[in-house]
Amino acid sequence: MAAGIYGARQKLKVLLITKEFGGQVVKKAMAIENYPGIETATGEELMAKFKNHLKHFAVETVEDEILKIEKQGDGFLIAGKSGAKWQSKTVLIASGADPRLLKVPGENKFLGKGVGYCVTCDGPLFKDKIVAVVGGGNSAFEAALFLAGFAKKVYLLEPKEVSADKINQDRVIKNSIIENLPLTVAREIKGDDFVRALTIENLATSQKQDLAVEGVFIEIGYSPAVIFVENLVEFSEKGEIKIDQQTGATITAGLFAAGDATDTKVKQVVVAAAGGAKAALAASQYIRETI
Amino acid sequence: MAAGIYGARQKLKVLLITKEFGGQVVKKAMAIENYPGIETATGEELMAKFKNHLKHFAVETVEDEILKIEKQGDGFLIAGKSGAKWQSKTVLIASGADPRLLKVPGENKFLGKGVGYCVTCDGPLFKDKIVAVVGGGNSAFEAALFLAGFAKKVYLLEPKEVSADKINQDRVIKNSIIENLPLTVAREIKGDDFVRALTIENLATSQKQDLAVEGVFIEIGYSPAVIFVENLVEFSEKGEIKIDQQTGATITAGLFAAGDATDTKVKQVVVAAAGGAKAALAASQYIRETI
Repeated sequence: MAAGIYGARQKLKVLLITKEFGGQVVKKAMAIENYPGIETATGEELMAKFKNHLKHFAVETVEDEILKIEKQGDGFLIAGKSGAKWQSKTVLIASGADPRLLKVPGENKFLGKGVGYCVTCDGPLFKDKIVAVVGGGNSAFEAALFLAGFAKKVYLLEPKEVSADKINQDRVIKNSIIENLPLTVAREIKGDDFVRALTIENLATSQKQDLAVEGVFIEIGYSPAVIFVENLVEFSEKGEIKIDQQTGATITAGLFAAGDATDTKVKQVVVAAAGGAKAALAASQYIRETI
Repeated sequence: MAAGIYGARQKLKVLLITKEFGGQVVKKAMAIENYPGIETATGEELMAKFKNHLKHFAVETVEDEILKIEKQGDGFLIAGKSGAKWQSKTVLIASGADPRLLKVPGENKFLGKGVGYCVTCDGPLFKDKIVAVVGGGNSAFEAALFLAGFAKKVYLLEPKEVSADKINQDRVIKNSIIENLPLTVAREIKGDDFVRALTIENLATSQKQDLAVEGVFIEIGYSPAVIFVENLVEFSEKGEIKIDQQTGATITAGLFAAGDATDTKVKQVVVAAAGGAKAALAASQYIRETI
């Protein structure tokens, strides 16, 4: 959406194709308190502000999923799941990232039956219940804190590497609803029709144990959502699109990328928005100079 | 201020030293319409939002001007114009940029007597008068449009290279108050106690001519405001601090920079805010890992 605003101000003809406005930000657990200038907003509220902002500009929007992007002459041919096809002079990929899977037995079986990746969406269902959160980053800690407002008890399984902000670590320690389990990994999710238990293992002692829980929230990061473009770009070890950090340029002329789908290290709303702005300006310059 | 928000959330002890909150953004001519999520705000309003946001966090602020930053052991010694000195483990320079001077006869003599760099500040004084704006970027075009709301006539002297957004170019062309003078440079500012005329030269014909004006606004960009740190960093050709675009790191360990004072190409509020966020997170990591 930031790229759309900047592209339209350059008088480019901008088509914004999205599966879902706001992407993973909409699903974010707690209020976002670090987008400078907006003191606090849920992911949904912040993305609504972006969407309303975008409406001031002549940006056409289409809801579709991109299956493939390929070169066609000097430009690109883009194919949507709906069957629609579009031609363009430049493409800017800002497809964000999808939740990373835990890959333990039961994860898939109990998806939507106690296993979730979005506490904002599903957290309130666990009022007065016992739940577990898996992860060591801000998302996991914020998910645990959010769930503590509903659940009777929240276990937080922390891996060896904890990357959450100290402010979130302190909040978790002070919260009497949350029991944090350091050096602990999930091994299996068990249940009948719904989740009933989580098998955990302490990495220091190798001891296993079943926790009686009705919900398991997996908050171990995101994988960049970029499979539809693999032959036109280079990928980092993490599967992110490699870009020039000044311009969003990829190895294919006219193809730009921005945000969490790229190898920009800091995954934050303001950084992704800046990436969109930079790439839209670079795409505009590319069009002026080459076509 | 974005760096302050991010630094405080990392539980760093943050001291923010500034000559003026908001810097050159506060002096910006027209409404800012491209900070994603905030549809429209004057520079002053947008910076007030940042400042109010910052107040939610434990960031100490001091109004002072930095004279010198030097290494002291593993950290830094910072000297203010007031005589105050501070020691710190890291320094993050986000000093922005100052207006670039035109360097023609009369510019200095008539400063504040018709010559200005801030139409928001001085524009309303030129109600029903004839003024000139010098420059080819967004700032110049936006300044001309802003002045057209007050002045009887606005000359816009455009250099060879016009970099303003097409949307601003179109607005200028449609505005009957503004007469744009392509390929035209200012040669001298003349007057008595106040500005009375601007000598211009057409670059195509080499013809000179005096325009009767009472105001001259110089909008030819900004120079990075970084002279106080020259021995600890590398500079670009434009005099900007060279940084790692992912982290804001400079060639001196522990010294970071962000925003318009750096060689980040795109000079926009959202990009500068993202730079501050990235550098504050990198400074936090530096402290965790090295001290």
